[in-house]
Amino acid sequence: MTTDHVFIADCQARLAFDLFTNTWNPVVVWALRGGPSRPGELRERIGGISPKVLTETLRRLEFNGLVRRHAHAGSPPRVEYALTELGRSLLEPIEAFGAWAFEHGSDVMAARAEAEEPGHGRG
Amino acid sequence: MTTDHVFIADCQARLAFDLFTNTWNPVVVWALRGGPSRPGELRERIGGISPKVLTETLRRLEFNGLVRRHAHAGSPPRVEYALTELGRSLLEPIEAFGAWAFEHGSDVMAARAEAEEPGHGRG
Repeated sequence: MTTDHVFIADCQARLAFDLFTNTWNPVVVWALRGGPSRPGELRERIGGISPKVLTETLRRLEFNGLVRRHAHAGSPPRVEYALTELGRSLLEPIEAFGAWAFEHGSDVMAARAEAEEPGHGRG
Repeated sequence: MTTDHVFIADCQARLAFDLFTNTWNPVVVWALRGGPSRPGELRERIGGISPKVLTETLRRLEFNGLVRRHAHAGSPPRVEYALTELGRSLLEPIEAFGAWAFEHGSDVMAARAEAEEPGHGRG
């Protein structure tokens, strides 16, 4: 397989990036990698995500077939979310990005700081 | 290195995803993989990107240290853009995502179509 034209004028491929135009999508997929979780557990694990935004993100991931919602009978009823097989297949590319960020994140921060300096010109 | 906490409460890592909250960023990085290119060449290679959006994307990538602008003297002056070493390091994770989209994009489309069906409930 050649990936030469994967991102160019190929809607199906660009779709992968569209999934990530919201930063919370990959963060929540990653937070679910250990198995089914309740919303409260996810919020604690992620940090800095409001209940509303978490719910919206889970709905979006469900809509895209990456996450499945399980409602367990009981009182009170217990709701859990889990990755589908499709969602699980995303963990590898997400990890590739995470590893990149871990290695190069500080370089990006440094470039930004330099670009923001008052004396910065285009040379 | 463990990536367990890479996306959780770690700003530097989330930054990698922030770079991709605009779909054009990875598309333009990918389009530059072959070497320095003029804006017109990039537009032709990518397809469906306006001159304005391409310029904004290149500025953003430059700001983040991923792309460098080269102005060659002459009449008319020739402007080219090229990946920096940092930008080049992004090609591998971008390709991982592209490969995923190539393999699973149709599954996402199918999940969306099913979720949009009028009779679709939460069971």
